[in-house]
Amino acid sequence: MARLFNFKMMEPASIEHLATLRAKSGSDVDKEIYAFKDKAGREVGLRFDLTVGMTRYVCSKRGLRPPVKLAAAAGAWRYDEPQHARYRWFRQWDLEIFGPESLDADAEVIEATVRLFQRLGLGDVTVNVGDRRAVQAFVGKALHVEDEGRAVELMRALDKSQKRTLPELSKEYEQKGFDPRDVKSLFDFGSIAGPPEKVLDLLGERKVGAPSLASLNDLLRERGVKSVSFNMSIVRGIDYYTGVVFEVSDSAHPGLGSLAGGGRYDFLPRAFGRPELSATGAAGGIDRITMSMERSKDPVPLLVYVAVAGTGARDWAHAVLRELRAGGIACEAPLQPRPLSKQLEDANALGASWSLIVGEREASSRSVTVKDMRTGAEELLPLDGALARLRAPRA
Amino acid sequence: MARLFNFKMMEPASIEHLATLRAKSGSDVDKEIYAFKDKAGREVGLRFDLTVGMTRYVCSKRGLRPPVKLAAAAGAWRYDEPQHARYRWFRQWDLEIFGPESLDADAEVIEATVRLFQRLGLGDVTVNVGDRRAVQAFVGKALHVEDEGRAVELMRALDKSQKRTLPELSKEYEQKGFDPRDVKSLFDFGSIAGPPEKVLDLLGERKVGAPSLASLNDLLRERGVKSVSFNMSIVRGIDYYTGVVFEVSDSAHPGLGSLAGGGRYDFLPRAFGRPELSATGAAGGIDRITMSMERSKDPVPLLVYVAVAGTGARDWAHAVLRELRAGGIACEAPLQPRPLSKQLEDANALGASWSLIVGEREASSRSVTVKDMRTGAEELLPLDGALARLRAPRA
Repeated sequence: MARLFNFKMMEPASIEHLATLRAKSGSDVDKEIYAFKDKAGREVGLRFDLTVGMTRYVCSKRGLRPPVKLAAAAGAWRYDEPQHARYRWFRQWDLEIFGPESLDADAEVIEATVRLFQRLGLGDVTVNVGDRRAVQAFVGKALHVEDEGRAVELMRALDKSQKRTLPELSKEYEQKGFDPRDVKSLFDFGSIAGPPEKVLDLLGERKVGAPSLASLNDLLRERGVKSVSFNMSIVRGIDYYTGVVFEVSDSAHPGLGSLAGGGRYDFLPRAFGRPELSATGAAGGIDRITMSMERSKDPVPLLVYVAVAGTGARDWAHAVLRELRAGGIACEAPLQPRPLSKQLEDANALGASWSLIVGEREASSRSVTVKDMRTGAEELLPLDGALARLRAPRA
Repeated sequence: MARLFNFKMMEPASIEHLATLRAKSGSDVDKEIYAFKDKAGREVGLRFDLTVGMTRYVCSKRGLRPPVKLAAAAGAWRYDEPQHARYRWFRQWDLEIFGPESLDADAEVIEATVRLFQRLGLGDVTVNVGDRRAVQAFVGKALHVEDEGRAVELMRALDKSQKRTLPELSKEYEQKGFDPRDVKSLFDFGSIAGPPEKVLDLLGERKVGAPSLASLNDLLRERGVKSVSFNMSIVRGIDYYTGVVFEVSDSAHPGLGSLAGGGRYDFLPRAFGRPELSATGAAGGIDRITMSMERSKDPVPLLVYVAVAGTGARDWAHAVLRELRAGGIACEAPLQPRPLSKQLEDANALGASWSLIVGEREASSRSVTVKDMRTGAEELLPLDGALARLRAPRA
């Protein structure tokens, strides 16, 4: 999918200076970085995502012509306590666009993400889109919180609103000196979610301007991207994201959590000394996608076992193996002399759909005995007839 | 290629206990391990190859049914001084067969390796095969060195004979108490190389039995593997390999060094507590292969730029992009409003072979203006005609 959108594949560095990794992670993820001193005493760490390395690379290459569209699919490490389906090493995919700020780049990242899931046969996803600037406008204009530090602190309550109750948050924020009515208003604001037009109307009623979201909606409609929902509680890392943010969920199982997420993060190129570069992207786990795909479909792939009956048949057996492989068919044969009955047991254990039995009779007639491993039926066929049989769909 | 031989793909662990990595590396590679203490104070290291992790995995899984055929393609790390085309992180491919000792497994690894290079269009390779047991027989029977430690030390001279002169080695080994005539004999032995039958004859004349090599030659002939050379100076890591060893070189440029190598290494499963398991495999660098392939061929892949003339054409432009991508064609369009002339400059900078210009005229007639970026020629075509034009071979 990345190729079709002309993203260039790269693999970011596995080891970065700790300071580089910390530029993104802040205090939240810092403790999860797999950090160590190398033999030269430098403080380094293993990448915990693909974005930092790609951004550091682009920021350091001043000759690149924007927009720079990069993609990666590789492993990353977190020094977490391992849990079920959450390991210290995991694989991610990642799409990033670096260049001048452009809502159409956000739209392109969202489109490519949706097309990726469609291509994988997991098309029934919802993209929940928020915008940090809309939240900021609400906090400034409706709640009249002008001080930036205070505003950011309040916005963090929105992120927490997905997991905590209003009374809990009210109490916490009252102790910090916030008006509980503001927290309540913010909580209500976070509940604005649904079809984009409806959300834009509700924002309008509250006099919260969201010009970016209105434009983004037009751009996504142009691109034919459906199943987009606007959701004001989506803010993600508030210290990190600077514009549009989104999370992708399985429409049928929204409770399973996010399959992918992303947004605009001008913050990071700025930290790497390139304030003129804007950046937007998306990332998702590969292991979880693989698991869903394995669960959802796929017949057993074709595997053929070539059983060798007698050493006089070995040359012919290997000619058969070469012919199968030339035709793209996975096959294997015993690696040591073994009675035919044991070979057929091996074929079963390997999950072969067919065995081709090759003895001296078959060798002299350039044929094979085709054995259907499901029914046990056998038939002597010339090699090309056998290949056609293997390729024919089975009842 | 791994799939066609029914090797199962896996990715071995990136981080291993240092003791596990040392089981293979011995003192030679130890200093090159990217080692560190993790946050829990454990001595660990990044994998320096794929074999150790795969072997550790197979040895720890007692339920696997042999032969276990595994393949991997992934990165590894060495704490070397970086040099041209030799970095601290590099990618390798790897094939391994674990199970009872079987020369046919060695033959299968060699065949799969040769077929891999053929499939990549790098078919003109030579597989130089040696056998530690033949060397051992020569050292024991011709030189009468019975003590195992002394024999191993002498065998190491053979490995060094590829890079050093006889007088240098003679001097070094005389100081260790070896007879210079033995070193000379070993040097001569190492020069035995060439077509398998010729080498087997020469070994016979010297009364060095090499039954494994004779059988391997038959097995490789059965498999139709050509371009095999037997070479008595190929011993590779003498502490590590226990049987057949081989190195693959580019027949046209043997001086470029080895493209891949491997052999039987029963030593390692033994170190991991599974003395009954035998193991044989091959590995090679991916970066070097990629470089050779890039040098050797490949037309520029097709990239199409969709230039948008006027906002009224945006819907149609995105319909065109979707149609191109559905047909497997990589394409991109501007991510912000831009004059047409600048868009065509971008198309050139990206290396697009064609631009499809989409304005309101084209939108209203469901057509596109196809611009050949090489000649500058333009033609208005309906979309399906344009797709056919893009796919047609160019003069």
